[in-house]
Formats: sequence, structure tokens, C-alpha cells
Amino acid sequence: MKRREFVGGLAAAAGLAACTSEQADCTSTAAAGGETFEWSCVTSWPPKFPGLGMAPENLATRVEAASGGRLKIKVYGGGELVPPFEVFDAVSRGTVEMGHGASYYHKGKVDAAQFFTAIPFGLTNTELNGWLYYGGGMDLYRELYEPFDLVPLPCGNTGVQMGGWFNKEINSIDDIKGLKMRIPGLGGEVLRRAGGTPVTLPGAEIFTALQTGAIDATEWVGPYNDASFGLHKAAKYYYYPGWQEPGPGLETIVNKAAWDSLPPDLKEIVSITCQALTTDMAAEYTHGNAMSLATLKADPNIEIRPFPDEVVALLKSITEEVVAELMANDPASAKIGKAYFEYLEKTAAYSDISERAYLTARHL
Amino acid sequence: MKRREFVGGLAAAAGLAACTSEQADCTSTAAAGGETFEWSCVTSWPPKFPGLGMAPENLATRVEAASGGRLKIKVYGGGELVPPFEVFDAVSRGTVEMGHGASYYHKGKVDAAQFFTAIPFGLTNTELNGWLYYGGGMDLYRELYEPFDLVPLPCGNTGVQMGGWFNKEINSIDDIKGLKMRIPGLGGEVLRRAGGTPVTLPGAEIFTALQTGAIDATEWVGPYNDASFGLHKAAKYYYYPGWQEPGPGLETIVNKAAWDSLPPDLKEIVSITCQALTTDMAAEYTHGNAMSLATLKADPNIEIRPFPDEVVALLKSITEEVVAELMANDPASAKIGKAYFEYLEKTAAYSDISERAYLTARHL
Repeated sequence: MKRREFVGGLAAAAGLAACTSEQADCTSTAAAGGETFEWSCVTSWPPKFPGLGMAPENLATRVEAASGGRLKIKVYGGGELVPPFEVFDAVSRGTVEMGHGASYYHKGKVDAAQFFTAIPFGLTNTELNGWLYYGGGMDLYRELYEPFDLVPLPCGNTGVQMGGWFNKEINSIDDIKGLKMRIPGLGGEVLRRAGGTPVTLPGAEIFTALQTGAIDATEWVGPYNDASFGLHKAAKYYYYPGWQEPGPGLETIVNKAAWDSLPPDLKEIVSITCQALTTDMAAEYTHGNAMSLATLKADPNIEIRPFPDEVVALLKSITEEVVAELMANDPASAKIGKAYFEYLEKTAAYSDISERAYLTARHL
Repeated sequence: MKRREFVGGLAAAAGLAACTSEQADCTSTAAAGGETFEWSCVTSWPPKFPGLGMAPENLATRVEAASGGRLKIKVYGGGELVPPFEVFDAVSRGTVEMGHGASYYHKGKVDAAQFFTAIPFGLTNTELNGWLYYGGGMDLYRELYEPFDLVPLPCGNTGVQMGGWFNKEINSIDDIKGLKMRIPGLGGEVLRRAGGTPVTLPGAEIFTALQTGAIDATEWVGPYNDASFGLHKAAKYYYYPGWQEPGPGLETIVNKAAWDSLPPDLKEIVSITCQALTTDMAAEYTHGNAMSLATLKADPNIEIRPFPDEVVALLKSITEEVVAELMANDPASAKIGKAYFEYLEKTAAYSDISERAYLTARHL
């Protein structure tokens, strides 16, 4: 691993200069408060965006408190220091020490990274964590990012995202054909093969596109974030459950040299805080979605519908086709995808008789 | 709050003597490594029991690493220092600084504590966290424990527990009548009113009771823990999904005076680590349950069945009756129960169109 200078990490660089691995008491000196670090964290989110954008803010606040001020992190919204989708490159190059975003934004550079966020009809939040922390997923995640000098730390999960807002009812496969919908990533490719036209738009442009009729449908996140963008006010809408992002995991990425410069106690503080934020973000979304849904349900212009079974079955079979191609064209995706789907088979069998059976019984 | 001496906290007591709140730089001295704490943590679990018993072990390891050795926690299995169900009293009295267990074990002393573990047909893991961290639940939890000089920290969640092992198929309500089943707490009371005979047995005695026919059925946790006790080997069994514990939250409790003696950075480290362990334990259970279920399914003596709808409906209506009585007889349960069920109504409506809809679609 190459060591580099950091734009925002002068204190860290100074610490490194004064403290080489030959000094046996280097770590304890750092732990005793002699060395402080000032890092920058770039993100893919609007500043302090509910849920997604709060994770890096909470990370900074909690790490500073837990470290007694020895590690200070300054958080930048998407576009403030680097564009939202250039977080990966900025942290990889060492322009900044840290980033927060979603691994599927690195599609094109590292296609296999998509498995660590979400795959249509794939792992839920808890299932993803089972794979990452106990099923070997983290080893694959670290190995995939190593050539880019990046250390990945899972940090947040939105839970199941909604299928989106549609300006007409979806009664059959025919209603998908010709549909112009804002839906990125693998889900977008599935929609395209089902006869629709996927469009990629930044969150901030969705409302206007819906209102002007430039698009017929959109997915975003769920009631909490959708309502904050006012999507339900753009027109009369049908709101559908999700299939494309069953529990997207977010990530904190740290430049390898910056990570290596931290003493063991600060590494542990950063790791623990990221894992805590997975509980915290899911809690924030559960709460925000439940409260926002109650508001949306009171709106006569919104009708909540399930997709017909035949539509779900079609989307699922196309997903298998799309994922098979991804795995055929990219050796890393083949390796990681194999592990992912073997895990999914076992964990889905358990979720069927636990979470699904329980939620069905409670709903009776 | 009264301050007390601690059996295992001599270092902390010494630190307190040397460092009063009048000293402005007291905290930074502690943060600089001048003060160390050695705590004891008693638990309700067999030592290092998979899942439940690993949470306090992981808590101790991670807090020591994150604090650079300034807070060391020695973990005791149930019965090693105090009996498994006397964790609450031992920490409340200040015999030890910390405990790990489940709040519904304090039934009888603090009936309302049950709402913070699990209620039949109640909140799931993620829903419970939404309520605790964003819906006001933590304020009620802290208020309930304050008179006992206890600070509660949610720490771990098993996810949905299984309904249990039965030596006959449950085809109707009549099959419940006369059934002798190991099932504690509110679930046990529901079974009793449905015509069964609930029995309370420590985990370690379940296998023999099943094998000798002393009981007809038992619930424990899920495939991961059930298989480790060999429950599936006791006889031919029908294995049913859960209704009684939809996402039990575990807790770390800290004696108030011990908590107050910690500098702010160590308080933050303990808080963050407990929240991280909620992600971690759910991941461990998801993994362990999925892997163990695959093994159980290969056993010809095990059949997995759903409860008939009429049985679920009966259990649910009796649960409402049991909880209404709990709330009528105890003012704290009335207050906390009201908040809990108002939250459940909103969050269940969202789970229906997100988690449940998704798991149903994936299962198609």
C-alpha cells in the first residue's frame, strides 16, 4: 500500500512522521491523547439529509465524543468538496480520508460492489448483516476494495425501500410497457427489459420531472424521504411496495494509509460506531417511514396497491437474467455473487418461517 | 442518587476519590488515560452461550479495545457470581457495576419492563429500535429504571423467535387444550388461558423434560440455540413459527453511581458498543438460524408447519386480554403500554407494505 499526503489530514501526517512502527510505545502514546487527527468525510448525500445524510453527521459527533476529541471528522455534503458520485475516487486517491455513500454507486468502476448495497429480490437488512459479519461477506468486501486502497465499513441501512410512485395503476405486465420511470441501477435494467424506460435523475430533480409529466413514475426511498421531497404532492399517485432494494446497506470508506495511521483504540471506535449506526439508521427509517405513512394515508390523492403476482414474477425472472449476465461478464461479480446467492438461499428459507410467518400472523 | 462502594470497582472508587466535579480538568485527565476502571458484569446466560451470552463477552472485549484498556469488564455467567434471575437486584444494589439480560426477567418487580423485551404479536427488532431511539421509548425505559438506580442500554436482539417444538401436530384449538409446554412470561399466560399448561424451566433442563415426556412441547429461541441444546433429537417433532417473542431486545444495565463515575468519553464508548451489539447479535442469529435450519430440514424426524389461522387468531385475542389486564393493574404498564401500542399501530401499517410485502413477493 502506498502512503500519501492528505489534504485534510495534516495532523495525522504529523503524527505519522513522529511515530514509526519501530517505536513500541507509539500506540499507547496515541491512546494517551498525545496525537490528534482531523479528517474530512465526503458524502453522496445532500447535507444532513434525513436518514442517509445523518449517518456521517452522527458518525462524526459520536467518534469525537468517544475519542475524547482525538479524532475530529468534518463532514461535507455531496458537491461541497467533490461531486456526490466521486466519493470513491476522492477517498481512494487520498484527497480526503473518509467517505460515506452506497457501494452500488461505484458500478462501472467496481461492478461487484453492488452486492454489498442491494440486489433486487436479494438480502434484507438483517440478512445482509448476517452475511457480512458472520457469513464471510466482509472478507470479500475488503478484498474487493483493497486494490483501491480503501477499507470498507458497513454503516447504515434504510430497510426495504418502496417500489415507487406511479401515475396509473399497474394491473398487468402491459402497464409496465412504455413506462418512463426514474429508477437507477439493476432495478432500472430490469425495468428496461420488462418494456419500460428507466431514467436516472438526482433526487432533487424528481419532483419537477413528475409534476411536468417528464416521467410517469419514480422510486426514491420510502415514505420518510419521499414525503420530504413532496413526491406525493406532484399528482394523483399509486404507491407500490418494493422489490428492487430490499435493505440497502450504506458504507463508510476509509483511505488505507489514513486507516493505518490510527492507533488501535481509534480504529475500534470508528468500527464500533459504524456498526452502531446500522441499528440507528434502520431505527430512524422505521420511525420516519411509519410516521410519514400515517400522513400519506390521510391524503385522498394517494392509493397504496400491491403489484399483481404476474408482474412480480416477471420482474423476478428478469432479475435472474440480469444478475447472471453481470456474473458472466465480471470475475469478481462471479465470485461474490456465488457466495451471495448461496447465502440468500439459506437465509431466505429461515426468514420464510420466522419474519415472514410472524408478520403474516400479526396481520391476520 | 446514592453513591455506593462496588465489589469489583475499587479502581473506579479510587478514581472518584481523586477527582471531584469541582475539578474542571477531571474529564480530560481521565480521557488522557490517568484513570482506569475495572468492572464486573453479571449475566442471565450460560457462559459464552451462542448469541445471548456472546453479547456481554463482545461488549467487554470491544470496550476494552476502544478505551485503550481504561475500562476493563469481567463477565460472569449466570450463577457464577449471582443467580441468572438476580442480575437486576445485584446491579441495582451496586454489588456489581453492570449486568446483561432481558428486561422481562424483572416481571414481578417491574412488570412494565416487559414492554422493552417483547410482547406477543408486538414490535419486531427494527420496530422496537424505532420506538426506543426515535419514538420516545428510551425516555420511558430510563424513567422506569431510575428508582432502582439503574441506567438501561439496549444491547442485542435475537430477531423473531420460533413458536417451538410440539410432539403432535396442531390442527385446531383443541390440540392446545391440555398441552404441557415450557413457555415463560406473557406467552405462557396466553397458553394457559387457551387451555394449556405452561411450565417454566431453565434452558438446561428442557431436553430431558422433552425426552422423558414430562412436557409435550417447548419453545426456546430458534434453530441456532435450539439445535445447540439438541432439542430436535429428543423425539419426533413439529416445529412452528413464532408469535410470542417477535424480536426480543436484550439489555445492559449499569448501576447509576458507577455510570456517573465514568468520564464522558467512556460513557459514549459503552453506549455506542451496546448499540453496535444490536446489529451484531441480530447478524449472529440470522446466520446461526439459517445454517442450523438447513441442518434441521435434513432430519426426517422434523416437520415444519404453520399454525392454523384459527389458532393464531385465538392466541392473538387472548394476548389482547392479558395485556389489557397488565395495563389495568399497574400504572407504569398503563403508561408505557399506551405508548407501545400507539407506536405498534403505525409501524405495523408500514411493515405490512414494506418488509411483509417484500418477503411475500420474494417467496412467490
